This record gives sequence, structure tokens and C-alpha cells, in this order.
Amino acid sequence: MRTKRKIVDERINLKKTRIGIVGATGYTASESLKLLLRHPHVELTRLTSRSDVGIPVEKVHPSLRGQVPLKFTEYSLEDFRGEVDVAFCCLPHAASSPIVKELADAGIRVIDFSADYRLDNLGSFETWYKAEHADPSRIGRVPYGLPEWFRDQIRTADVVANPGCFPTTAILALAPLVKAGLIDPEDIVVDSKTGVSGGGRTPKLNFHFPECNESVAAYGVGTHRHWPEINQIVGRISGCKTGAIFTPHLIPMDRGILSTIYVRPEKGVTPAAAQECLASAYRREPFVRVTSELPATKDVSGTNFCDLAVRQLGNRLVLVSVIDNLIKGASGAAVQNLNVMCGYPETLALL
Amino acid sequence: MRTKRKIVDERINLKKTRIGIVGATGYTASESLKLLLRHPHVELTRLTSRSDVGIPVEKVHPSLRGQVPLKFTEYSLEDFRGEVDVAFCCLPHAASSPIVKELADAGIRVIDFSADYRLDNLGSFETWYKAEHADPSRIGRVPYGLPEWFRDQIRTADVVANPGCFPTTAILALAPLVKAGLIDPEDIVVDSKTGVSGGGRTPKLNFHFPECNESVAAYGVGTHRHWPEINQIVGRISGCKTGAIFTPHLIPMDRGILSTIYVRPEKGVTPAAAQECLASAYRREPFVRVTSELPATKDVSGTNFCDLAVRQLGNRLVLVSVIDNLIKGASGAAVQNLNVMCGYPETLALL
Amino acid sequence: MRTKRKIVDERINLKKTRIGIVGATGYTASESLKLLLRHPHVELTRLTSRSDVGIPVEKVHPSLRGQVPLKFTEYSLEDFRGEVDVAFCCLPHAASSPIVKELADAGIRVIDFSADYRLDNLGSFETWYKAEHADPSRIGRVPYGLPEWFRDQIRTADVVANPGCFPTTAILALAPLVKAGLIDPEDIVVDSKTGVSGGGRTPKLNFHFPECNESVAAYGVGTHRHWPEINQIVGRISGCKTGAIFTPHLIPMDRGILSTIYVRPEKGVTPAAAQECLASAYRREPFVRVTSELPATKDVSGTNFCDLAVRQLGNRLVLVSVIDNLIKGASGAAVQNLNVMCGYPETLALL
Amino acid sequence: MRTKRKIVDERINLKKTRIGIVGATGYTASESLKLLLRHPHVELTRLTSRSDVGIPVEKVHPSLRGQVPLKFTEYSLEDFRGEVDVAFCCLPHAASSPIVKELADAGIRVIDFSADYRLDNLGSFETWYKAEHADPSRIGRVPYGLPEWFRDQIRTADVVANPGCFPTTAILALAPLVKAGLIDPEDIVVDSKTGVSGGGRTPKLNFHFPECNESVAAYGVGTHRHWPEINQIVGRISGCKTGAIFTPHLIPMDRGILSTIYVRPEKGVTPAAAQECLASAYRREPFVRVTSELPATKDVSGTNFCDLAVRQLGNRLVLVSVIDNLIKGASGAAVQNLNVMCGYPETLALL
Repeated sequence: MRTKRKIVDERINLKKTRIGIVGATGYTASESLKLLLRHPHVELTRLTSRSDVGIPVEKVHPSLRGQVPLKFTEYSLEDFRGEVDVAFCCLPHAASSPIVKELADAGIRVIDFSADYRLDNLGSFETWYKAEHADPSRIGRVPYGLPEWFRDQIRTADVVANPGCFPTTAILALAPLVKAGLIDPEDIVVDSKTGVSGGGRTPKLNFHFPECNESVAAYGVGTHRHWPEINQIVGRISGCKTGAIFTPHLIPMDRGILSTIYVRPEKGVTPAAAQECLASAYRREPFVRVTSELPATKDVSGTNFCDLAVRQLGNRLVLVSVIDNLIKGASGAAVQNLNVMCGYPETLALL
Repeated sequence: MRTKRKIVDERINLKKTRIGIVGATGYTASESLKLLLRHPHVELTRLTSRSDVGIPVEKVHPSLRGQVPLKFTEYSLEDFRGEVDVAFCCLPHAASSPIVKELADAGIRVIDFSADYRLDNLGSFETWYKAEHADPSRIGRVPYGLPEWFRDQIRTADVVANPGCFPTTAILALAPLVKAGLIDPEDIVVDSKTGVSGGGRTPKLNFHFPECNESVAAYGVGTHRHWPEINQIVGRISGCKTGAIFTPHLIPMDRGILSTIYVRPEKGVTPAAAQECLASAYRREPFVRVTSELPATKDVSGTNFCDLAVRQLGNRLVLVSVIDNLIKGASGAAVQNLNVMCGYPETLALL
Repeated sequence: MRTKRKIVDERINLKKTRIGIVGATGYTASESLKLLLRHPHVELTRLTSRSDVGIPVEKVHPSLRGQVPLKFTEYSLEDFRGEVDVAFCCLPHAASSPIVKELADAGIRVIDFSADYRLDNLGSFETWYKAEHADPSRIGRVPYGLPEWFRDQIRTADVVANPGCFPTTAILALAPLVKAGLIDPEDIVVDSKTGVSGGGRTPKLNFHFPECNESVAAYGVGTHRHWPEINQIVGRISGCKTGAIFTPHLIPMDRGILSTIYVRPEKGVTPAAAQECLASAYRREPFVRVTSELPATKDVSGTNFCDLAVRQLGNRLVLVSVIDNLIKGASGAAVQNLNVMCGYPETLALL
Repeated sequence: MRTKRKIVDERINLKKTRIGIVGATGYTASESLKLLLRHPHVELTRLTSRSDVGIPVEKVHPSLRGQVPLKFTEYSLEDFRGEVDVAFCCLPHAASSPIVKELADAGIRVIDFSADYRLDNLGSFETWYKAEHADPSRIGRVPYGLPEWFRDQIRTADVVANPGCFPTTAILALAPLVKAGLIDPEDIVVDSKTGVSGGGRTPKLNFHFPECNESVAAYGVGTHRHWPEINQIVGRISGCKTGAIFTPHLIPMDRGILSTIYVRPEKGVTPAAAQECLASAYRREPFVRVTSELPATKDVSGTNFCDLAVRQLGNRLVLVSVIDNLIKGASGAAVQNLNVMCGYPETLALL
């Protein structure tokens, strides 16, 4: 029986998708690597870094000891042209678009973890990110990588804009309700709580253990760049302008986002109706679970699930939405997009 | 010089206030003990417990090793009559009022940590606490123990209703703005995050370390009993009915509450005006600090401070209010009330 | 291509191993379920509980929402006889052996998570566990479920004694060195640090969040039952009596064990020689990684790996050994044993 | 009565000791400030910083909002000469001795938080700290700031070497036993676990929240500079050369150190005898508590206590020693030394 299985595995493996990761020293790269190692149809070929060229991957990501026998290389288009079918681009905003452009122009498909292609237009990008964009003509044409809402566009895209972590929680909760006209699109408060890994791997005082442990704080009030992303994408899905406000908070835990979303139901809309609207929207979705219990971030930790619940609170509805910020909020979403792009079962390596 | 100081200390000590704590095995009792040990004018005489009668206090509160040479005794009015001037009553709601009543009727002043005397009237208590009240005639006549707003009544009270932890954050932030008519009293969202010590010392699954560590969850949505307390007390202070909604969240840390409060400013009200209103209201208050930075709970951890800040967010204002739930949210407030009741400097043992 | 893959999958699936879990509400059961859901050749048929009969599994383990459409049933041999090929028995010590005995006697293979079959003999069990044993004749004949050392016996066993979490770290580090005569078997200090999930899912004061968070304490000094297990199993492997002493500590984290082991090298034995001895012992083992860096528990969190390193410290050697207590220390070890027992690739569902 | 108290306070206050802190932006400075604010007989006059000159203290230490109306200044001897009676020097090793020397030479008494004056001699300092020393003639003549053992020398010292945090736990546990000849001085294993604040306030990858949270690791094995300090000071106290080995571990908590110390009792020495030896040594010490229970770091968190316990483990004794690394391990010890140096009651500002 062993022999048979081996033969079959080899046949399946014939056409593995070759993956390269640009900017592979951070947490989203590390999580992507863990997921991709479980994926039967991909092969890791290139992991790039500017700071750690020549260093074995496992020195930077010790949890991968013995699992990834590669060293970091400097990024070059030449290397990617011959060895990579799909690139995960894990660079910061503004640093990403030049690379994405040249990869995509060279025919290499890209999943971009940055915010460079998420917003509706160049003006919006420049206003919020205070940076020049190297690939303005693609903005607005790149699908937003939330397969639950943009699956068809993702399937054939050359570039996919992997969603922001906070927006993922808010959009999945809000889009069906706004689209169905069940809530006032102008009266939405999104209060989000995130684990510290969302801040990345670079040491900074606010992510220094003795500063953020045993503490909670709001940050980026009125200035966080995920704010416009939430409204623009809910608008794209629903065709309806929304005026959600958004405040993130830093919580002393590694991973997880919980968004508490306060909305005003249109007349006669019960929590049950709202819950049914969500359940109906995501009935066939493998990674969105509409639950009757209030979900905790621990329920989705280490998974690609988004759990959603609805409650009444005075004359408002409260939506609670939880994800693992590094999985459904970043690397899991990327692998889900990869599966859609390559025609693999969408849950491969994710369940 | 040493001799002189000793003489003076003794003279001051002549009339120490004798304190008894009813229900002294929990966290609020433990924190009260730590504060009272630093208080030059009090003396601990009775610590009661139903479960641990005869046990040395330091077996239950090991941080007090060698500091409190008392054993827990069973509560009896007789004991308190001769030995206690002011009682800290740290019992659960409904269990508290029978004891408070008999102590107060016997002329012993009481600071009640429970919710039994906080709400406006008996009906409200019965609706939210689903319990009978042993002392209905005192409800509504007992001052709410927030010296910042009820100092004069506290000074001479026989019973003081020590505030709830969440309401303390919300009331201190909202009362001045509602009173001054700067915000819409009907459009208020209070999103609170608390450390786990707020749940008390009794082991339960949701406070079991592996359940609540590395996780965040909303709880008590629409049912938490601090909800009516917030509106009733802000109403008592401002003379204005408010319709705040309230959702608490459990955060993986020991202590601290941060409330993020979303309000709608009346026309023309700027964040600066709101901040000035708060600063002006609390200018002479030793324990409320209005700050220009966004405060973190760590900034007030282990202290009796409440830090407040204001931000603009779209067409709303965001108020951020932080306390240590065990100090300003419970035991520190009690000691502050004690100081007011006894005519001691209000900051004694608290700075 | 899809069709082909499906056909093959079905062929492989023809003979799925049916798994039942006895005592399926705890953390080790929950972790086992997560691993087994990824296993292509098993099927979950029975999950039993005494306290939660009739309750859907996902109510108790919300992270499994939508993944395990089963309800807890009461355990009965009848149910298991027809529906279960291999049972995971996740009961406490002494409660386990009666069930294990009747399952094994009925021809159902069992992986026992309790300590009932780990020690050398009945006397040792009775001394340390102060309990009667329901199946004394099997003690000493059941293989210890550490495939790295007992693979051949596990392959054909009717019952496997899944190892204790602390002993796993100590045995994997010590066995090769003792066996090779490189260290003094009488002078061994094992100082272990564990996350709180090791204490199980039942709420207790010492695992109450505000008690164990922000704190570290030693416990069970001189009385912990993993102490004899370490010496007996290292003895079984090496043929050499050892006198290791052992102290566990509770650390404020969910999962992970790090054991720091102080040993006295025989004359002339360098750290390099000790490291080479370990590397050589585990060269072909998929789950033991001998590293030159000092490993952290985070390096193995969520994995079935044990990472080992050696350092010199004065005239001693220090061995550092880390695992995830719920995976390699419990459920991952069980799945590894299952794979060995059923002839599956040993890493299936574990990488 | 109020008036009387005021008069007395003023009389006592006439001769306040003026304190300056050099390097006042770190955690030990912050903790020192909190303690000194409670001290009735000191006055803060100078807080220096190289990086934050001109910045209000409360911007760097937000927990001190409104409490310390000073700005950081650049250090200069001139400033200190006129305004400072006792300097707390919170600089890193090697950076400290030049400042300490010039302050002390100018007649300003210094409590030095660095390691510059702790070791026995210049050679030892140079070997372990790989640095030049600016004040070699004082090394070996400066008392080690553990009042429990060096009170008389501290009283009159111009410079006091504030102890290292790990050594404090080890020395307090070991010194009485070694001195009394109850244990083998050559067979001592010190396994220490520390919270992250011990690493200071400068962000580094190993103190980055997502790296050290939910993880434990050993570090500095064989190279940590507190190792020689332990042996040298126990030697100084006992007159007996010891061969203790030492390994520190980083634990995911803010503060606290627990040292588990494995020693070999001399023939016939029982745990009770060892416990009595400790109890007797510290009977009159206000900050050392010998307990029959195993202490947790939480028992001493926020306090200047060191709790000690003894247990038997096979043929060894286990000593468990806990402190708050920032208080008894740094700033509390400094204030205790200050009290001794100035003739204040030793517990002032510390209970």
C-alpha cells in the first residue's frame, strides 16, 4: 500500500507551484512558510531578505529548524523569473509596489501583503500613506484578496491585494448587512483589539514586553490606515457609501483580533434577522463561521476562520468578529488566495 | 531627632480609626489591606470570612506574610460593635445589604463594595440583580462613593456605595461633558476592556488561565449590571437622562480597565473644548489626570489615578479613560472615601 | 487531474482507522482532535464524557466549530466494540486502567494518556499514585510510548503508555548520554518550567488567571509523580540506574515545557562530545532536533518537535530540552504512536 | 490637630535629603522615583539623561504624570555639587564608574546601580566585563549594598554597590547556610527565572513582545556576569570559597525573580535545620521572610521582600528564593541603602 501511495504522490507532485517570498524575515513570512510546508502542491524556491542575505532561514525562524533548507538571498527579478510561479510579497507599503510591478510585468503572479493596491484610487493612497506609488495604473484594478467577496476576480488576477487584518474582521461582519440594507451605513463604530504580532517583528518601545504586557491602550485614533480600507471595501461590495469609524487597541497577547462593531439596525431589523443575513451570506464559505455564542479570539487562534456573532444592545446591534491576525488576517488569506488563483481546493493547507 | 518623631507619631496615633473588613478573602480585601497598612491613622481589628475562619490572614494572602498578624473570624455584629469604627463590606451583591443594614443601624459606618446601594431605586435593583434587598429604605439615600462628584454627602454618610469599576471610568469621562451639554446624551457607546482580577478570586472556567490567556472576548453584552449604573449616576450628576450603551471585554492581564467612549459632540464642540471641560472639572482633583497623550492602563497600574484623554474621530469624539480596577475601581476608592469620611487628607495612603 | 486525485484519495480512504476518545472534554483531547482532523486515514467515531453527555463537541471546544459534527456520549464498551479500532484514553490516573483493561481485553487497541502503565511495576505505581490499579498484570509489559526508544514494541502493542510531559523532555535529553556512559548517572538535576495548560481544564485556584499570571512558582517539590517516571524510563533505556532529582515550575504561558538539566560529565567528556552523542542518537528521528542554539519553547510551540542543546557551565554540562507539552508532551506523541501502531508514515498529521 | 501635624511635618522636613538620579529614563530610575515620592525625608532635585534633555519626566514615565514636575537635564558635576546630597547612579556598567568617581570625590554620596564596584577586584571586573574601570582604587573597598550583611559598612560609605538582582536571591538564600557549614560549598546549582523588565527599557528582539511572550528560554549560560558576583559575595560573607553554578531564564512576565537552588546538605543536616538557620539569620531583618510555604514571585511583587523556603528533594535540599527584581533587586534595595546611609528608619517608603 505504501508503494502505491508513493507513486500517486509523485504523479500529483509533477507540477508543483513554485513559490518565492520577498521580504521573508517577518512574522507574515514565517506564518506563510509554516502553512506552505503543509501544502502538497507547492515548492519553496526563493526567500529574500535585505538584512540577512546568506543566512539560513532557520537562524531567523528557529521554529522552522530542519524544515526549510534554504538561505535568504537578495531579491532579483532574474532569480524570480526562472524559479518562481507565484510571489508572496511581504514588504512594507510603498516599498512593495516597485517589486510587485516588475514581477507582474514579467508574468509572475503576485500576492501582495502590503496596502499598496488595496485602496480605491491613487489619491486615496497618497492621502493616507503619504508616499509615492510605483505602479499607479494597477491601483483600482487589482482585486481585494477576500475570496468570500472577490473570488472570481482573484482566480485570474496577476496581482492580488491581500487584505489588512483589521479590515478583514470589519468587512466580513459589515458587508452582508450593509448590502442587504439592514443597518444605517453612516452610524458604525468599529472598536478593534489586536495582539502584538500585528505590529511586526522590528523591536520598538511600544512592543517592548515590559511596556505592552499587562496593559491595554488605544492607538492611531483617527489616523490608522485601515480606517479608509474598511469603508472603501464595504462600499465596493455593497455599492453603498459607509461612514464607519475605527479605533484599534493593543492587547497583551501574541495573536488574534476581536472587533466589536456597534451598528444601528434599520427599523424592525432584529438580531435574528441580522444573524440570518450573515449566515446566509457565508453558508458555503469554508472559513466564515456564524455562531450563536460570543466568539473569543482563542477560538480561531492558529486557524484561517473568522467567527461572527450578533447581539442586541439597547437600540443597537453589536457584531463581534474574530480572526487570527497572522492567518486569516495575513498568511492564511494569502494561501487561500493562492489556492483560488491556482485552482486548488480552497481549504488546502488551511484545515 | 528620632525621639521627637516618635513622640509626635504617638500623639497622632492616639485616635486611630479601627477598621473591620467583612468578606476579607477576596482581591478587593487584599488590596484594601495593602493600602490600609500604609495608612498612619487606621488600625485593622477584624477580618471576617465564612470559609476560612481561624486561618491566619497570610495563608490566604501570602503577599501579606508577616504584615497582618490576624486570623479570619466569623462575622458577628457583637465583635464589630466594640472593635470597629468603619467597616469595609466586601460581600457579593444581595449578600451585602443585610450586613450593611445591621452595621449602620448599630452606628458603625460602612463602605459597601457591592452594588446594593448604587442604583437609583429598589425597582432598578430588583430588575438588574434579580434579588431581594434587605435594606430598601436606604436605597437612593446612600451617596455614590465617587468623591469627585459626591464629596459632601460622603463626608457625613453612615453608608457609602463604593462605585463599580467600569462605571468609574465611564462616569468620570462622561459626567462633565453631559453636564455642560457638550455631547448628545443619547448617542454614547462605552467599549470597556478589563483585566481578569475584576472577575474575583473564585476559580471559574472563563478565568482559568489557559482559557483567558492569549484571548480576548466580549461578555455580558446587553446584560452586564454596570450598564444601568453608568446611566443612572451620570444622570444624577448632570440632571440629564443618558442612553449610553456598554460592552465589557476580558483582556489577558491582571489589572486595569480601559474604556473607549464614542460620543457625538454638539455642533461646534471641538476636541479641545471637550478636553478643557474635563480639565476644568477635575483641576483640583488629586486623582483625575486629564492628559494630552492617549493613556495606557499601565500608566495607572497600582495607583488610584484615573487618566482621561480626548480625540476626534470622524464626526465623533473618542474619550479614553483608564484606571486600575482594584485601586480606583475598588479598594483605592474605598480608602479615598474613608479619608473623606474621617476628615483625613484625601490622598493619605494613596500616593 | 482533480478526478484522478479524488479516485486515489478514495482508494486510500477505504480502510480508515476509526478513533474513539474516552474523556474527550479536556485539553489533550482537544489537541488530539485538531491533529486527527488533519490525518487522512482516520475517522472520529466516538467521543465520550461523563459530564457533557449529549452536548455537541463544539460547545465544549469552540475552536472546533463546524469541524466535528459529533455529540459527547457516555462511554460504553458496547459502543466502542463495533465502532472503534483505536481508543485514545484521556482519563485521570487510576480512572484509566479499568477502561483500558476492558477495551484491550476486547481487542481494541488503546493509547493511554494516564500514568497507569508507565511505571516499572505495581509497587511503584501504588507508592506514587496512592491508588489501586485495575489491570496490574499489564504493568511493566506495556511499552512506553516514546517511539524514539520503543518503536518496535509500540508497533504491535495492544496498549501504549503515552509518556508524561516532563519525562519526555528529560528522557530524550538524558537517555543517550547515560546509555553511552558520558555522564554521572547519580548527579542529575532536572529543573522544569511548564505552561499552565499542563494542569488541565478544571478550574483551580493555582491556575486561576490572576493567581498564576505575572508569577512563577515551584510546586510538587519532592512529590511530583513524573520524578520516578524519569528515572525508571531512562533506566529501562540505558540499563543504568539513575538518581535524577526533579522540580517543576509553573510559568505564565499557555503551553510549552523547558527543562534545564544539570549533569556531571565523565572525565574528558566535552560539550561537543555530548552534543554529538545526542545528534547521533536522533539522526534519523523526525521529531528530535539537536541544535547549536539554545532553544526556546516558542520554537516548538504547536509542533511535535523536541529541541535539544548542550552547554558547558563550570564543571558541569547543561542540557536544555523543549517541547510543546500538549503536542509532543501528550497529543502529538499519541498520534505519533498511532502512526507507528497502524503502519502509517510516522509524521502523518504532525508536520 | 491638623495644624499640629503640619508643624511637626515641617520641622522634620527641614533637612530633607536631596536626591539626584543619573540616567533617569530606565526602569530602575522609574521605580526609584515611585518609592522616593513616598519618602517623607527626601527631595528630588536632579534627573539626568543623555537622550531626553529638556523633556518633562512624565513624558518618559507616564505613570508619574503630575507627580514629578521636573525635566531631564544633562549630567554635570556642577549641578550635582550644589543640589544633590545622595546620587542614584543608574548607568550601565563601565559608564558608571567615571561618574561615580567624580561624584564621590566631590563629597556626594553615591548608590551605584551598575556592577562596577561589586566584584572583589579589578582583575575580576576586567575578565567578566571586558571593559576598563575608571575608578580602580575604590574596587574592593566599596560595601556591597545588601544591608542584611553589610549594614555597618553601608552606614558610613561614600559609595555603595547596589546588588545585582539574581545575586540578591542567591546570596540571601546561600550565605547563612554556607557560613554555618551546613552545605557543601562546591555543589550548588542556581537556576533562576526572571521577568523581562530585568532586561531594561531598550527595545531588543529578545524582549520584543511576540518573541518572549508565551515562551521561556535559558540565556547567558556560562557567561552571565551575575555568576561570579554570587560566589564572590557569598565568599565575602562566609569566608568560604563556593563553586555555585548559575543559569538565568527569561519568563513571560514583567517583574519578579525566582531562584531554585539545589544544594547538598552536610551529613545529618535536615531541611528543618536549614530552615532554622535561615530564620535565625534573618529574624530581625524587616525584608527577609523565611516561610514554610513555597513562595511565588507574586507574593513579593511590588515589595522589597525576599521570601525564602527550604525543601528536601532526594539527597539534596532545594532553596526557593523570590524577589521583585525592580524593588529588592534594584530600586528598593537602593532606598533601603539610602535609609541606612542617612540614619532613617530602614523601612521608610518601603512598607
